[in-house]
Amino acid sequence: MINEKNVQLGKVRSAIRELFEYGKKRKAEIGEDNVYDFSIGNPSVPAPKCVNDALVEIIQTYDPVFLHGYTSAQGDYSVRKVLADYINERFSTSLNADCLYLTCGAAASLTICLNALVNDGDEVITFSPYFPEYRVFAENAGAKFIVVAGEAGTFKINFAAFEKVLSKRTKAVIINSPNNPSGVVYGEDEIIKLSEILKKYSEKFGNPIYLIADEPYRELVFDKEVKVPFAMNYYTHTLVCYSYSKSLSLPGERIGYIAVNNQMTEFEDVYAGVCGAGRALGFICAPNLFQQLIKKAYNVTSDIAVYKNNRDLLYGALTEYGYEVVKPDGAFYMFVKALEKDANAFCERAKKYELLLVPGDSFGCEGYVRVSYCVSPDMIKKSLSSFKALIESYNA
Amino acid sequence: MINEKNVQLGKVRSAIRELFEYGKKRKAEIGEDNVYDFSIGNPSVPAPKCVNDALVEIIQTYDPVFLHGYTSAQGDYSVRKVLADYINERFSTSLNADCLYLTCGAAASLTICLNALVNDGDEVITFSPYFPEYRVFAENAGAKFIVVAGEAGTFKINFAAFEKVLSKRTKAVIINSPNNPSGVVYGEDEIIKLSEILKKYSEKFGNPIYLIADEPYRELVFDKEVKVPFAMNYYTHTLVCYSYSKSLSLPGERIGYIAVNNQMTEFEDVYAGVCGAGRALGFICAPNLFQQLIKKAYNVTSDIAVYKNNRDLLYGALTEYGYEVVKPDGAFYMFVKALEKDANAFCERAKKYELLLVPGDSFGCEGYVRVSYCVSPDMIKKSLSSFKALIESYNA
Repeated sequence: MINEKNVQLGKVRSAIRELFEYGKKRKAEIGEDNVYDFSIGNPSVPAPKCVNDALVEIIQTYDPVFLHGYTSAQGDYSVRKVLADYINERFSTSLNADCLYLTCGAAASLTICLNALVNDGDEVITFSPYFPEYRVFAENAGAKFIVVAGEAGTFKINFAAFEKVLSKRTKAVIINSPNNPSGVVYGEDEIIKLSEILKKYSEKFGNPIYLIADEPYRELVFDKEVKVPFAMNYYTHTLVCYSYSKSLSLPGERIGYIAVNNQMTEFEDVYAGVCGAGRALGFICAPNLFQQLIKKAYNVTSDIAVYKNNRDLLYGALTEYGYEVVKPDGAFYMFVKALEKDANAFCERAKKYELLLVPGDSFGCEGYVRVSYCVSPDMIKKSLSSFKALIESYNA
Repeated sequence: MINEKNVQLGKVRSAIRELFEYGKKRKAEIGEDNVYDFSIGNPSVPAPKCVNDALVEIIQTYDPVFLHGYTSAQGDYSVRKVLADYINERFSTSLNADCLYLTCGAAASLTICLNALVNDGDEVITFSPYFPEYRVFAENAGAKFIVVAGEAGTFKINFAAFEKVLSKRTKAVIINSPNNPSGVVYGEDEIIKLSEILKKYSEKFGNPIYLIADEPYRELVFDKEVKVPFAMNYYTHTLVCYSYSKSLSLPGERIGYIAVNNQMTEFEDVYAGVCGAGRALGFICAPNLFQQLIKKAYNVTSDIAVYKNNRDLLYGALTEYGYEVVKPDGAFYMFVKALEKDANAFCERAKKYELLLVPGDSFGCEGYVRVSYCVSPDMIKKSLSSFKALIESYNA
């Protein structure tokens, strides 16, 4: 009688959530330190000290009526201006404050963009493995959601498969680089090829296909030679969804932005669509204290070195033991090939060694597991004998 | 080609927004103090000092990984528990933590409730005057939006007109008491009568009609004898949308909650629908710093006496000059009868006296204007000669 689709969404527990509950129970049984929980994507590195210092300074010195008051629906103009200037300086764009819409986190950015663009029956494409809520967001906006499997073993874009699913109903393509769950970063060559295909088919069908670049992990890249191309520089019809959840370790505070490229001819309509979707969904005025914070901390990041060390430690050990691992260039996830066909069965066996891993099935990719290494280095060190014993149990 | 409905929503400026822009321009021309801006609903009273003190203490003493980290999608369990206990103590309900869903402000609460309940083609009813975004939210959730005109002059519920529009497609009724824009509070007799009608027609049609009580102004009531009945105590199928925007003067921080009455038989489905709609719209985990704040400040309010004094001053003067005013028992708005049929023309003439008033048309009610008195008492005092001159210009 009420909205059955949303009732089901509320009732179905995700695999990650199930594992979270199992982990809680297991930790109570055998002790927190004896369960190796690699299931959660919550930053383990605290927000930089300057973030808390800035928050206190803002609270103690700003006029409280201004500080806790409404900003314009898109966010405080002066905050948007600072961010636009910073993006321009960093990526040689020419955005202005009115290209940005401050949002209450990455989920909000995505639902707003999708609702701005999609008409019922349109198609939205992404590449697997992918963040599972993309499907929920796209379908809620009225789109048919299409997944193109990434190249086996590397999880780069399979362009031949991609071209086959493009149609005149394709409204948008979502990319997520650095990727959750694989840590894969798309290189410049890939972004160029993707842009060429999008241009070709936009012309062929006579409608722009929009590129939504979901970039919460942009700053979490570990090696100097790895660059994350700024998609807007390659493809005009781009909307960037950014969040400070990971870069500043503020996932619970819900602050991010949408940047719409002002080089597209129909920019005014697209930005108006973003504003209108924000209004219709109920996302107006992102939390102001955190708007004012990012005006000060826009170019700061948490201590990424911790994640790099974790990656090196875990990647080194797992490959040495004989696991097949997609080498992650960014984010704080590692995608590891399961040791049997059914990743769910593999994860069940891993539990016997107190390892909590997430089956890749959740991310539209069978036969793999996600290992979140945003955890303490000590836990990783302690867990290694379990990973070793797990692979030995298959080789025995 | 993109979503035209949302493009239009983003492009159309509301009357309030137009007036805001006019006010900004006019203040630059003749000085801030010479424009009497009664158009804005932003609290003028700062958040209580204990709010900022608590924020600083939380930031300086909590583990930052916990403080800025994800909570569960519905909000931190311990916060929901404190709020449920407080509601129970205050209103003799028996809610528990899992009846509450913490949200990113009142707009979020409403869109989540509507999306949880509504199937395409369902009908949602409210009473005028009403907050204009109700229409946007209801239509976006797929509902037909129906407005029942309030009783002329008192803006209480017109029950005869209400009964006429109830149908088997009626899914929900939204009430807002104390009301924006009229300041009217529904008394216990009205809530009882409303409940009886809702029960009768729910039985007649064989489907529950849900009551959504939008209560951002609950604490802003000025006289001891005025009580705001807690709708859940009278009608089982009630969802309460609460926000701390006005009670704690935190409109820019986006924190509030939905409380679903656990006395309804289908409670589990309705709460799951709320969780699912929150997920599909992208509202998960309300800003955690402010979740932790309300765990401490749940029973505090801003200095309401300022609004009471403003009301008494303005109501006294306007009625003395001969204006017809609906006496506001709560919120910080006053609904004043325009001195000509067309409230837009009246507001245009008011501008000549530097008075910025919002035409009631925006709130589904012609012939009235909204006067927001969440302003400085000095501005009210200075504005009185303008109000006097304005009515004299009509009587001349």
